Formats: sequence, structure tokens, C-alpha cells
Amino acid sequence: MTTPRFHYRPPDFGVAPLSDAPDATFGPMIADGVLPEGFFSTTNLPTYLRIGGTWRRPRSPRMDCVIVMDAEGQLTAREPRRLTQGTPVALGEAEDGSQGIYVHTEGFLGGSRSANEFQFMATAVSRERPVDYQQLAEQLAEERTGGGHIVWVAGPALVHSRARSDMTWFIENGYVQAFLGGNAIAVHDLEAALFGTTLGMTAEGESVAYGHGLHMRAINAIRRAGSIDEAVRSGLVTNGIMHALVRHGVPYVLAGSIRDDGPLPGVITDVLAAQDAMREQTTRATFAVLVATALHAIAVGNMLPAYVDQGGDRLRPLPTICVDQTEFVVNKLRDRGTHQAHGVVTNAQDFMHVLRFYIERWEQAPGRRVRRG
Amino acid sequence: MTTPRFHYRPPDFGVAPLSDAPDATFGPMIADGVLPEGFFSTTNLPTYLRIGGTWRRPRSPRMDCVIVMDAEGQLTAREPRRLTQGTPVALGEAEDGSQGIYVHTEGFLGGSRSANEFQFMATAVSRERPVDYQQLAEQLAEERTGGGHIVWVAGPALVHSRARSDMTWFIENGYVQAFLGGNAIAVHDLEAALFGTTLGMTAEGESVAYGHGLHMRAINAIRRAGSIDEAVRSGLVTNGIMHALVRHGVPYVLAGSIRDDGPLPGVITDVLAAQDAMREQTTRATFAVLVATALHAIAVGNMLPAYVDQGGDRLRPLPTICVDQTEFVVNKLRDRGTHQAHGVVTNAQDFMHVLRFYIERWEQAPGRRVRRG
Amino acid sequence: MTTPRFHYRPPDFGVAPLSDAPDATFGPMIADGVLPEGFFSTTNLPTYLRIGGTWRRPRSPRMDCVIVMDAEGQLTAREPRRLTQGTPVALGEAEDGSQGIYVHTEGFLGGSRSANEFQFMATAVSRERPVDYQQLAEQLAEERTGGGHIVWVAGPALVHSRARSDMTWFIENGYVQAFLGGNAIAVHDLEAALFGTTLGMTAEGESVAYGHGLHMRAINAIRRAGSIDEAVRSGLVTNGIMHALVRHGVPYVLAGSIRDDGPLPGVITDVLAAQDAMREQTTRATFAVLVATALHAIAVGNMLPAYVDQGGDRLRPLPTICVDQTEFVVNKLRDRGTHQAHGVVTNAQDFMHVLRFYIERWEQAPGRRVRRG
Amino acid sequence: MTTPRFHYRPPDFGVAPLSDAPDATFGPMIADGVLPEGFFSTTNLPTYLRIGGTWRRPRSPRMDCVIVMDAEGQLTAREPRRLTQGTPVALGEAEDGSQGIYVHTEGFLGGSRSANEFQFMATAVSRERPVDYQQLAEQLAEERTGGGHIVWVAGPALVHSRARSDMTWFIENGYVQAFLGGNAIAVHDLEAALFGTTLGMTAEGESVAYGHGLHMRAINAIRRAGSIDEAVRSGLVTNGIMHALVRHGVPYVLAGSIRDDGPLPGVITDVLAAQDAMREQTTRATFAVLVATALHAIAVGNMLPAYVDQGGDRLRPLPTICVDQTEFVVNKLRDRGTHQAHGVVTNAQDFMHVLRFYIERWEQAPGRRVRRG
Repeated sequence: MTTPRFHYRPPDFGVAPLSDAPDATFGPMIADGVLPEGFFSTTNLPTYLRIGGTWRRPRSPRMDCVIVMDAEGQLTAREPRRLTQGTPVALGEAEDGSQGIYVHTEGFLGGSRSANEFQFMATAVSRERPVDYQQLAEQLAEERTGGGHIVWVAGPALVHSRARSDMTWFIENGYVQAFLGGNAIAVHDLEAALFGTTLGMTAEGESVAYGHGLHMRAINAIRRAGSIDEAVRSGLVTNGIMHALVRHGVPYVLAGSIRDDGPLPGVITDVLAAQDAMREQTTRATFAVLVATALHAIAVGNMLPAYVDQGGDRLRPLPTICVDQTEFVVNKLRDRGTHQAHGVVTNAQDFMHVLRFYIERWEQAPGRRVRRG
Repeated sequence: MTTPRFHYRPPDFGVAPLSDAPDATFGPMIADGVLPEGFFSTTNLPTYLRIGGTWRRPRSPRMDCVIVMDAEGQLTAREPRRLTQGTPVALGEAEDGSQGIYVHTEGFLGGSRSANEFQFMATAVSRERPVDYQQLAEQLAEERTGGGHIVWVAGPALVHSRARSDMTWFIENGYVQAFLGGNAIAVHDLEAALFGTTLGMTAEGESVAYGHGLHMRAINAIRRAGSIDEAVRSGLVTNGIMHALVRHGVPYVLAGSIRDDGPLPGVITDVLAAQDAMREQTTRATFAVLVATALHAIAVGNMLPAYVDQGGDRLRPLPTICVDQTEFVVNKLRDRGTHQAHGVVTNAQDFMHVLRFYIERWEQAPGRRVRRG
Repeated sequence: MTTPRFHYRPPDFGVAPLSDAPDATFGPMIADGVLPEGFFSTTNLPTYLRIGGTWRRPRSPRMDCVIVMDAEGQLTAREPRRLTQGTPVALGEAEDGSQGIYVHTEGFLGGSRSANEFQFMATAVSRERPVDYQQLAEQLAEERTGGGHIVWVAGPALVHSRARSDMTWFIENGYVQAFLGGNAIAVHDLEAALFGTTLGMTAEGESVAYGHGLHMRAINAIRRAGSIDEAVRSGLVTNGIMHALVRHGVPYVLAGSIRDDGPLPGVITDVLAAQDAMREQTTRATFAVLVATALHAIAVGNMLPAYVDQGGDRLRPLPTICVDQTEFVVNKLRDRGTHQAHGVVTNAQDFMHVLRFYIERWEQAPGRRVRRG
Repeated sequence: MTTPRFHYRPPDFGVAPLSDAPDATFGPMIADGVLPEGFFSTTNLPTYLRIGGTWRRPRSPRMDCVIVMDAEGQLTAREPRRLTQGTPVALGEAEDGSQGIYVHTEGFLGGSRSANEFQFMATAVSRERPVDYQQLAEQLAEERTGGGHIVWVAGPALVHSRARSDMTWFIENGYVQAFLGGNAIAVHDLEAALFGTTLGMTAEGESVAYGHGLHMRAINAIRRAGSIDEAVRSGLVTNGIMHALVRHGVPYVLAGSIRDDGPLPGVITDVLAAQDAMREQTTRATFAVLVATALHAIAVGNMLPAYVDQGGDRLRPLPTICVDQTEFVVNKLRDRGTHQAHGVVTNAQDFMHVLRFYIERWEQAPGRRVRRG
């Protein structure tokens, strides 16, 4: 909150470069509501124009306006639509005084932020920021080609929605070197494999009769088989995420949590033992993708270094992609110290689908040869 | 999602209580824009008035209106503000026929689920529900092939993110019969066309120096050209959404709002005039897609009937897709009476991308012949 | 909110189809923790099994369990993992009595609203719905006065924000009979007690130098003391939530999770043991308040019955208040079967503050005499 | 996203202060899992310890650990719980080398942010940050006492929920010098005054029969009265926000929007005229409170200067409080250039209630004399 004990320090116009600045220039409105080329577009910050050697502030400051000088020489910030042909408006793009206009940001922006420029779209994590899937796909593909250790951390929403087949595709095509999650994602995945539903909801979003018991029946079937691996080997489970992990020998860790039903055999119910198992993977990670999970994303973020140590002085940032429906989880992850997290604010299903599409395109590029694992 | 296999069953007017219902009554407007006491306030559902013993449906249905009878006895749903003193409007509060007016909810509200079964995943709008892009693509494609009137309503986030080229693709390929939005989406789109940025941020998410002024420069360039259409025709604007709309002669409405800079020429700054322009499109709508806008989605939802009237007893639900990052906007839309809204909880950019991908696949199916508009 | 004026109407077992229902059947556990085919999977609703022609309700109801009959013929809902080979468990999928098991949804699901009326504001959980703090305060106060067992489940955000002193107040004044949470809420609370910060942020929201290490120092101090209880008794910890719990002898359960630092002594790191400890409290619950936690709210919701069994046919809904910043957690809780959850969509800090204010007012009403615990 | 073109620059150990740094010191574990006083708590960033004059990096870096040296002199980051009594762990709080430990943040933190320190809770706008109601109340109260011009901007959610009476209180007690909003907030407020409902929902959250028409009846009643002012003067409207504004002569601006029903008389339907009317208030603003509105908050933020011009060089920041249920609106406001916005992430109802409570307390402080307007 802005403190009342604020002391404004005006710019020091007596020293360079401000002392050497030229006078501001003005140009006439081309037509009613039509500005001259190169008009100065205002911010909401204290702004000074040099007029006849003197620095003056316009009245009625606001952003997205222009500065006009009236017959008495009075400066005012005005909406362009209100100005008639011929009215003189200030010209210039620069805000540093070099064109006779100075925007004084000091003390009005940011607090701890260094950013000394008035700008839009400065928030780091936002649904409004574009996602560069192409760059992300390229990076992931090169990591795979280069023998990196790509660690995926995923929540059950990945199976609820239809990203299940996309996640399976990533495993089958060598983009997953370790898979970290909880009991729930495996339960939903196995319910889907055995009954075609997740929590009793079909892939089309319909509820089936008495569907609420199906995840319990799935758990029981696996317990009867003895283990997830055995359920795959015996042919009980023939598709999905766990199937792909087992078939391709990808290490996975399922950490128990207080909300688990079952649990499935293989779930590590002691959380410290589960942490130790996860950390075996995180210490080797060269790339991390965290999808649709707050609990596990923060847990793994906690264990991940911010960088990959390639020996000697060869360090590089550890790319850490965090995908969630809202900005909250990504910001929380960053607020817990995982500053390198790059947020992708979208639906997990769509993320998986689009990313896979871009990777397939990358793989199909002429001259590219992708070895299958 | 509304299934195409819907069969409308009109009310059974032959049995009590409807068979015993009185005729609807009417009372005159007290003054211009002032309704008589006890006026009937419309919903967006099929509504029948008993007139001389016959049940009839008003034209141009929408919620929050009144029903007027003109000299020829024609019934129409009209906004109160448009009516002059003396015009007869239907009276009554009851919707069960007891006052001669019957609102037929069956099949248009609530859906198939019983409130009395224990089940998981019963929330209608949720990021955890799967999106059936394939069905959605099919429905949209068939609507286009069948000569439907597909109305799009879009917010500026569509341009911030990189869905701009996908939106353009939909326009160019005949999937847009009307485009409703505000000043901002056009401003961002034109800034992108002229400077490659939106609010000074590049498509890669980087800020450019003094980028905060670029949308003002874009507005000014269009104002100088005289109109958006002229800016396209003159070759100033060569790509993007507005360009495609103009080139393909798709009607668009840009409604002014209190937060507008500029505005662009062509923006309707009187909101009542803007409503009238939008309603010309909503009364003809056979399909509606609302993307990344709370203000306009609720505005248009307000004007949309819940059904398409195909003449006689052939009514079908009006598919209304509402895409937003969170459940909130969709639920708000439904809480304002647009119960038919089907929520897709995801990022607008990803939605556009995946939907386009599925439609392209639909078009490329063997034996399919798609005529270009 | 669940009204106290609820009248439970048991099923009418004298009329068909219930009068014609067969006895429930049982089958033995195939192995330790492995259920027989066709087991009956429980809900949290009143459930009746026909045994020798008589309908009986199992003890300790909760969802996602099975029903066992012990040597004395007593029925109980139990977690499958706790059952040994040969134990007889109830069989059947149907919940309508046709297999001797009847789930009585009436009055506990759905509520009063018809799905067939056009209306605004029909969404059950919404930030736009008013919170009736006065009714909530009254209900909580009466529960306390009447000797109820009020179970609180809280996430660490309660300590981040300044609701810490309000939570402490509730404990000190007899409104908390059990406190369920994780390692994090205790760590933050103890960091606040020892250093005046949470995660290095002061109560005013400022970061202190090297504050990121303070929670580790807090954990270490408690580990050195040997236990939380000992840290309180020795005078190391002199205020806050854990202090109040220890001082007032309120039972608490701290369940470990995969994201824990430390953990603190006393945290139950095996999640199944932690579940068992929590269930001891949930089976006795007559009121539940879940604040600012997704993980624990869903875990506890999973274990809570939908009703309080007061003996005989005296059943009443179990008031379950779920407070979160967004609708998502509440809807998720309901989508996991805790249909009775009443959502309060607000900031945890403000919720605690306003609720306390209303309870203090209730206590101060003339003629009210509140005994301190 | 982290770019692959990153070049790591190790610290320059050859120059002061690092060249003068002492060796790191170590102390033994007090007991199994209990650290010595003053242990060094790790971050996830490249960290160097000076050992025998040489700077070395520990293996297996992660945050929230300690650094141990094994018998071979190898350094490793380890979880404290895994260490046994006597194991030597690194000591020190400082991360600048002055205690022989250096954390190298360069290149791994922040991008454009200046923040060169690893810390938690750095996100500016977050539901997890405490709200200092006391300071806020004080500031507002002093603004009122000092004759400031406090501008309120409010959305309809303020009336949906029960903050209506609190908003009224603020008006009646002199804390509102201008009120800016849209048609909807006035419609809901007047529906509440006339029928006790908002959009057909009672203050208890219940829907009344045919309640969807009540806002239309409210609008019609005011239209019949001729104006809002006349409806108040004639005794038709006897309570609420609009009533208080009229009675206390507080200027208000109701800006039309595309989603309006009615509109009410007095609503400015031309958005440019509405902007002009609002700007008359924003140019005089010395304090701004924006509650529960995205559209109007951004519109007014657009028009507000970042500072109050008190003449000469006496400028001070213009306190701008933005209250919303999620971080999104506040961040959007900041992303549109209103960098001074201080976000309060909570429910509007609770915000109003708690703020009023603190102001009442401020007013009642001994020796305080508050003149009523």
C-alpha cells in the first residue's frame, strides 16, 4: 500500500542530459480527431515538457492521451477525439528528455521492481501472454535427442480430460525419462483402462450408473493382480499411461497422500520415502514439465535445482514448465522459490494436445531422423 | 453439448390445465418506454400466448423483454425502451398458462440428470470435464455446410495470444456469419497488423520500447484512413481479423465501452444503438461461439433465444459455446439465464488452435467436398 | 446452508419394492486387502442392508468403503485395505434395494430447486451468493453449546494471512474439538511464534533478509525441543495455533505430504496411518469447517458421512462449510461426492475475521451465558 | 522460457569482497535430525563454499537443505532429517561470501526484475499476502478528514452480496466524494430497495418465484418516476446506495454498457459522454477504491493519474485500491498501466464489512472527533 510518508524528488534539470535537452516540439492536428505523425502518447506518470527553456507539467494527467498547448500556453493532457484540426499537440516518442519531454518514473513505479519504464503487459505469468509452443516443442525435442533426463510431474486432471492418450504418446516416443505423481493419476488411468471411465465419467463427460464405485473396482483389480507391473504383463491392463510406463521401462514414483483410496500396490505411503524416491529423479533432471498439479508441482519444485550442472563452469538454467488452469499455482510455485518456473496458463488437455502436435511437426521436418527409444 | 438428435415436443394444449387457460391479456404502454403494471417479462425459452383460443409464439424471442401485438395481430418480443405510449403489451407474471401465457421449459433446461443419485463429477461447468473437440468441430462444420448463421463473439485476449491467425482462418473459410466485439479487439488486431505487437507486446511475449503508445498510433492511422474498411481497401491493413471480415464481407459490430481508447471509426459509441445492431445478428443466429469475453458474452447471451425456430413445431436448442479460462464467466452467463451455454474452460488461444485442427481434419475426410465461400 | 429444522424421513420399508427386497449377500475377502468380485462400494448417505428380513444401517459411514459384518452381526463401513482374507463384505452394485442394499438419498442430495424453472443465480457455489455469517455463527455457537464435535480442517494460507489470531481465538473459546491439517500450517504457525514471519514474510507483507531460511530454523528449534507439546510446555512457543491446541488439550492430526520440509516431530508421515488418525475424528464429527485447503478438504470430505447419526431414526445433515478463494475447490469437493458441502467463496483471512465478529456478537447477546471450556 | 543461448558467468573470486572471504565454517549435528545453531539453509541457485581457500560447489543442489562435508571432503546438499548426530554441516546466514558461502544469483533470477535475492512470497498481488485493513482504514479516514476527493468505482457484485448496506454506510458517513459505476449496480440496488431481491435472489440466497422479472419491474418503476432522484424524493426508494447518493448529494456517474437492460433514466448511454463525465471526477481524485468490477476498474484506471498534484513540487502517489476475488483483475489493471494499483484479493462483501469495522474503530478512538458531512 502506498505509504503516506512519500517524498517526491523532482528531476534534476540542472545536470545533463536534461540540462542539454531541446525544447519540446508541437505539430497541428491533421483533421478533427486525427493526430499528426509522431505524436507523444502520455503515461499516467509525472511528465515534464521543456518550453522556452523551462520544464512544465501538463494539467489533468492520464495515460493514452496527447498534450496540447492552448493559446495562453497552458499544457493539458487531452483525449485525441476531443481535438479539432490545427490544434498543436506535442511530438516525440522518447520519454527521456532527448526530445524535450521527460517522464519521471522514480518513486511511482514498482517498489522493489527495477523496471523503470512505464509499460503494459509486465506481469510474468498471465493467461494473456502467448505460449510459444514451437519453441517449447523444439526445446523438448532437442533435450530428448541430446539424451537429457526429462522429468514429468502430473496430476489426475490429465486423465479426467482426454490428455491421457497424449501423455501416453509422449511416453511411447521417448519424451519421458521419469514420471512423478500420486495414487490418483494412476487410479484414474487404470479405471480408464479397465472400464473406460474416470470417476465414473466417460470420455464424453457422461456419468454411468453407479459409476462412483468404478475407481474402487479398478484399485481392487490391480491389488488382486499383485502390482501394476503384473497387471500390465498379464494383459489385464492394455493401454494408457501406466501401461506405457511399464512397457517402456520408464521409472515412475507414485507418492501417497492423505486423500488416497486404496492405495494401489506400489504407491509409497511414507511421504519421506516417497520424497527420497522422487529426489533420485530430480537430481538427474535436465528438463521438468509440471502439469495440472499443485501438490506435486510444489513438492518437486522444492527439490529441483534452478540449474543443470554440466561440469566445471558449464551451468545452464533447468527449464521448468508449469502448466495450470490459473496463474495461481505458477505464482505459488515461484513464491516458494522456484523462480525459474515458466508458466503456461491453460487447460492441461489442450496443452498436451497442442504440444504433441508441434513435436510431431518438428519430427517430420525434412532431414530430421528421430530414433525411437 | 447440445446434441443434434433433439426432438421438440410442443406442449399438449389439449389437456388441462392448458386446455382451460384463459386468453392472454394486454395493457397499453403508460408512456414512451414505460410499461403498464403487471407486464409479462420474457425468458429465452419457447413461449406461447393464447390469443382467441389459439396458442401462438412471439417472433424474435429473447429474455428481459415484453411481448407486443401489432396491428396485424403479430406477436413480437421487444425491448421496452423501444415502445411508445399506448402500444399494447402482454400482462401476467405466471408462466404456467394460468394467465394465458405458457413458458415451455421441457428439453431446454436442466438436462437429463437426476438430482437424486450420488455421483461424482456432477458439476456442469468444470475444467475437469473433457472437451469433445471432434463433436464440436463436426457440429460447426455441418452448421456451415447447412447454411447456418454462426455468430462469433470475441474478446481482445483472442488477439493478445496468438489465436489471431486462427480466428482469421475461421473467417476466411466460411465459419463466421457475424462477428460481435468491442473497440479493443479491433484495436489490438490492427496494432498487430500495423506494428506486429498488441499493447506493445510482440507475439513472443516481449515488450518493445515505448510500446505502450503503439495502440494509440494504430487508432490514429485508421482514423486518418477514415474507416476500417478504407484502411483495408487502401492496402494499409493487409492481414488479421478485421482485414478478413472486410475482405469476405462478413458483417461485424463493434460496440463501444467505457474503457475505450480512440475509438476506432465504426465503433458504435451509443450502447443502445450497438445493442440494436447486435440483435440484428442474434435473432438470425443458429449457432453461437463466445470466446474470452465476459462483457460481450453476457450481453449477447442476454439477447440470444435458447432455441432456433425452424418454423411450425420444429424447434431445436441453439448451440451456445462459451470459452473462458475459468468456470466463472460460464457460470455467470448461466446465472444470467443463458442456461444452454456449454462451457469450455480453457485458454482461448489453445481452443482456437485445436478446434481449427479438428475442423481441418473433418474437411479433409475422404469424400467430403467443402465449398469455399 | 443446512437448516437445523431438518426432519429425516426413513424409507418406507413396508411398501414395494423395498418390502419385496431380498436379504443382502456377503462374500469373503479373497486375500488381505483384496475384495471379492461385485463388492458393494459405499456412499456417504444413509444406507440400509436387509439382514434376516430387517433393515439395518452400518456404523461409521463414509464413501469409498465396503460394509463388513463382524462375528456379532454388527455392520460397519471399513476401508478395504484394513480387511483380512476371509472377512465377509456386502455384495451388490444396485443402490435401490433390489440386491438387499438401499441408499436413501432423499433430503440429503439435490435440494429444493426444480431443474425446470427459468431463473437467474441458480449456480450453487458462487462468489456472487451472499454469505449468511449470522446464521453460520449461530449454528456454530449452538453446536458448541450443545456439546457437538466441531472438526476444523485448515491449510497454511490461514497462517500466511493474519487469520492466525482468529483461529487461535476459536480454539481458546471452545469452538474446536479437533484440528486436522498438515506439516505446513504447523510450520508456518511456529515460524510466526518464533520469528514473527511466515516463509520469511512479516505480517505486514514485507520480506526480511534471508527470510527463506526461517521456516527451516523453526522446524529445527522444535526438533531440538523434542516435540510440539514440549516446545509449548517449555515456554519456547508462547502463542498461536499450535500453542492453543496444546494448552487446551484439543486433539490435532498433522498428516505428512510429499512437499514437506522437516517434518516437525509429531507429523504422521505414513499417509494411511494419518488417515486412520483423522478418521477417528471424522466419525465423531457433528460439524465440519474446511478452510483454505484443497488437499485436506478433499481428504476429509472423503471420510465424512453426509449426516450425523443421533440414534434410531434421528439423522440430520452434517453441516460442512468449505471456505476457499475460488469456486473450484468447493465444486471439486462436491464432484468427489461431498454434496453437502456449503461453499463460502472468499479470502480465508476475512472469513475468519467476520465469523469471529458475529460469534462474539452472538455470545454478547443479553441473557446469553457462555461457559468457557 | 529459458533460452538455450545462456552463458553462465561464474563469480569473479579474484576480486574483493570474494577474494577476501574467510573459509566456510562447519558445526556438528546436535542429534539425529537436529541441526546446530546458525546452520546455512540452501537455495536452488549455484552456491560456492570456500574450503581451504578454494571455492567449491556442493553436489545435488536443492533448496531447504543443509550442506554437509563427508570424510573425503565432498560437499553435498542434504535434507536435515537424513543426518546423524555429529555430521558437520555448513554454518552461516549470509549469502554474499562474507561467511565463506556465496550464492550466485546472476542469470538465474528474474529476467527483468532487479531482485537479486532468492526469496519466497515475491509476487506482488496474491491472496496469500495479508491485507492491512488497519492501515487502509487509517489512510481512508485521514483522507476524509483532510478533505480529499475519494472516488469509488463499484460493480454489481457489491449489491448481490450483502455489502450493499456497508456501501451505503460509507456514503452516509462522508467517505465517498464520487461514485462511478454502470447501469447494473443501480438496477440491482433499486431492485433490492423495491423488492428485497437482486436478480430475483433474496439476501439469504434464495430464489423467489418468477424472480427473473423483478429487475425489469424495478427499472420500469424508476422510469415511471422519471429519474432516480425523483424516485428517491417521492419516497418510492427509501434505502440503499442510490438513495444515499441522492440524499447526500454525492455526484455519481452511471455509464451505459452493451449488456444493459432498461436502462435506468440517468444512465449515460454514449460511452464517450460517460467517459467525459467520469473524467471530471478522476481528475480531482486523491484516493480511489475500485471494488468488484473489471470493466469499470480498467476504464477508471485508464483515466487516473498515478499521482496527486498538490501544486509546485508537491506530488504524491494516488492511492488506488483494487478489490477483486482473484488476482487476475488486479494484474490486468497493472498490465494496462495502472502500476500503482494495490490489490486486495478477497470477496467484495467481506472487504466492505471488515473495512467498515476498522474505520468505525478508528472513529471511536479516544480523542477523535469526526465531523459528519
